[in-house]
Amino acid sequence: MATETALDKVIALAKRRGFVFQSGEIYGGSRSAWDYGPLGTELKENIKAEWWQTFVRGRGDMVGLDSAIILPQPVWHASGHVKTFSDPLVECVQCHRRHRQDHLEEAFQDKKGRAAESMEEIVCPDCGTRGQWTEPQQFSGLMKTYLGPVDNEEGLHYMRPETAQGIFVNFNNVVTSARQKPPFGIGQIGKAFRNEITPGNFIFRTREFEQMEIEYFTRPDEAPQWFDHWVDACYAWFVQLGLDPENLRKFDVPEEERAHYSAATIDLEYRFSFPGSEWGELMGVANRTDYDLGSHTEASGAKLQYFDQGTGERYTPYVIEPSFGLTRAMMAFLVDAYTEDEAPSVKGGVDTRIVMKLHPKIAPIKAAVLPLSKKPELAGPAQELADRLRRHWNVEYDESGAIGRRYRRQDEIGTPFCLTFDFDSLEDQAVTVRDRDEMTQERVSLDQIEGYLAARLLG
Amino acid sequence: MATETALDKVIALAKRRGFVFQSGEIYGGSRSAWDYGPLGTELKENIKAEWWQTFVRGRGDMVGLDSAIILPQPVWHASGHVKTFSDPLVECVQCHRRHRQDHLEEAFQDKKGRAAESMEEIVCPDCGTRGQWTEPQQFSGLMKTYLGPVDNEEGLHYMRPETAQGIFVNFNNVVTSARQKPPFGIGQIGKAFRNEITPGNFIFRTREFEQMEIEYFTRPDEAPQWFDHWVDACYAWFVQLGLDPENLRKFDVPEEERAHYSAATIDLEYRFSFPGSEWGELMGVANRTDYDLGSHTEASGAKLQYFDQGTGERYTPYVIEPSFGLTRAMMAFLVDAYTEDEAPSVKGGVDTRIVMKLHPKIAPIKAAVLPLSKKPELAGPAQELADRLRRHWNVEYDESGAIGRRYRRQDEIGTPFCLTFDFDSLEDQAVTVRDRDEMTQERVSLDQIEGYLAARLLG
Repeated sequence: MATETALDKVIALAKRRGFVFQSGEIYGGSRSAWDYGPLGTELKENIKAEWWQTFVRGRGDMVGLDSAIILPQPVWHASGHVKTFSDPLVECVQCHRRHRQDHLEEAFQDKKGRAAESMEEIVCPDCGTRGQWTEPQQFSGLMKTYLGPVDNEEGLHYMRPETAQGIFVNFNNVVTSARQKPPFGIGQIGKAFRNEITPGNFIFRTREFEQMEIEYFTRPDEAPQWFDHWVDACYAWFVQLGLDPENLRKFDVPEEERAHYSAATIDLEYRFSFPGSEWGELMGVANRTDYDLGSHTEASGAKLQYFDQGTGERYTPYVIEPSFGLTRAMMAFLVDAYTEDEAPSVKGGVDTRIVMKLHPKIAPIKAAVLPLSKKPELAGPAQELADRLRRHWNVEYDESGAIGRRYRRQDEIGTPFCLTFDFDSLEDQAVTVRDRDEMTQERVSLDQIEGYLAARLLG
Repeated sequence: MATETALDKVIALAKRRGFVFQSGEIYGGSRSAWDYGPLGTELKENIKAEWWQTFVRGRGDMVGLDSAIILPQPVWHASGHVKTFSDPLVECVQCHRRHRQDHLEEAFQDKKGRAAESMEEIVCPDCGTRGQWTEPQQFSGLMKTYLGPVDNEEGLHYMRPETAQGIFVNFNNVVTSARQKPPFGIGQIGKAFRNEITPGNFIFRTREFEQMEIEYFTRPDEAPQWFDHWVDACYAWFVQLGLDPENLRKFDVPEEERAHYSAATIDLEYRFSFPGSEWGELMGVANRTDYDLGSHTEASGAKLQYFDQGTGERYTPYVIEPSFGLTRAMMAFLVDAYTEDEAPSVKGGVDTRIVMKLHPKIAPIKAAVLPLSKKPELAGPAQELADRLRRHWNVEYDESGAIGRRYRRQDEIGTPFCLTFDFDSLEDQAVTVRDRDEMTQERVSLDQIEGYLAARLLG
């Protein structure tokens, strides 16, 4: 129960301090999506920047892409989404509320510790009626919209449920313009939309969400080794950015649970400690074989293949797909960083301190500049220092309240360094730098502060 | 006609080199949106990063936000979009194609040099029939979608036509959690969707597009001075990133052309030299007064106001809105950077060189590493150098073709520096650095190359 409480605390902190707000809260809110406040936006941007640097800019075998959310209809027919991207839905005949059958069955299993033998055993979570369900009907997870001047079949478009297809249909464009040859990959970060019947668990399952996806194209015989490479690279990325390996595990998805196109899937799961399920999917690496390029070749007539001039061989590359949920990653980093320890109290003595031990690379605010007093002789130069540091980093200036309380505010949002500008600073042209995790303090000269921070924030 | 040709050349180059692809091209393409290739994605990311640094992270009076694309319906009723975000549409009674009446009238004006006296003068651009039009009907520019298990009124949602409203409805959340007080602003970058009847002019007018918006909250009496501040700041941003002031102008939008909520609007226009219209809107700064916070306060019951503890005064802040089109900015930077000059030809003598004189801060590739020969003794260490530089920048490695041809390839995509690794490099541990614009060359030691580039890429 201790970890469950931690999750609740993280969610409350995220709302209170401006990481995440309920979308459209003043109008009663939405279950479909969340809004990211000032700190959440910075955290999310930092995660994206790290991902892009590690997997796209930092590698010679990767390039980026940014395809549209609304692609022509045939893309989604060829990909199989129009036909197969659906879930079985049942309706309670008493209250007419609809639910996903598989979710009802999972909830039964979680509660009773055994599978339900039939739907007759299952109680409607809305009205409490037992076993009064319609036959399941397939319900599409694709969101529709209409483009152009008339709402008809011609104007019907789908919003992408994954960024991947925008990459596949541009395969030839990228090979030609960026002169790439397998093994190489294309990375993309962007929004995707799925009409989830039961969004929930905070930002974990939403109808509007953000993905970070890589489609890595290889010779078919080399696909297994690249699959292993990507599983390791993804795992290493999370650990390098601070996730505790104790809370991260690989799950080899058995064949019957894999997507129809996948020859192998390994999910990375994080110990979110949701009520009723300890582990949740953080991302997955799939061997999509030549399914996607093959399907689009067949449907479009464009040959999405590679011609190897060295061997004279033409082939359809296999695809290894590492697919990350951006907001799931953000949630995992928040949960993992949440720490309570003991620290000197503002009122004297010692009390419990909440500290977000976010990796400095992703912390939303890198440093806070705190004048010891609001008096202009301190506040003025302290503000100048903050402005100077803002050329490089996201920096906060805070002059209100006791210094101890200001430290605690910064600890709670994961700011790695607090820079206190005191009366001595006017003499020695130096500030006291306090380390978030160790709470150690050291005096650093103002003319060396950029170098001091740069060395510690990049690490 | 010279500038018209330049625009065509830029568009052709953008497609050929992988800045911009037609969306869903293998399925016949879409007029609604464009896909951004490897170079376009980097260019766009760099523009976003510069904008965010200049206007959000770099300022003490700004914070960021990232609200959802799909907000609850009442947001769009209160904002006035459901009622007023529409255009007059007429249908040709012969071919049943629909057009925006104002666009037909503008086209007539551009062609004939005078306004049409009535629709009877106007010829259908599709079938050529003259003056056979239905009465105009209002057509909504909002795109619809349905959330949840049933397609009905309850599930009807709109995709945001501007990011601004997501900021207004979070006003109180931001004031409280980020402890901001006027004057302060909230910046946001994100997708928006408008059901344009006539998308066109490449990436200038599309149904899916990206905005960079600021809502800056001030005391009502201070709004005019902040309006001026933001017009100047936006103008300076474009010029500082390389736009020629000759191609940039301010347009003070007259009252009858302003949005209903605006007390003043100044557009920044760029000389795109479209066929039929030389100047196009790049961005606009509007004084939205207290219209938005007032409307949401009335509709939601939440008091989107500020209580000044110093004066004991409660008021609804005025809003100054600088609203940028991201892809319009990208198009302007591309058009402005396109240059033809003379340079030593690969075949000897001199010929025309195409060079994209993009500001180094936004250039998609910062440096190219070119081994003089493909031989492993050069290619090996050259690749190592490229990998080393990739820790900091987006760097290309290219070993194929004559060195002069490789320089030209990089010139065409705006790479500021080419680093040639030759046989001497093995001895002197230095490379020849060629400057894109000046075509000057200098020898730089390998152990100083990071510092050399850093000093020149930040400038």
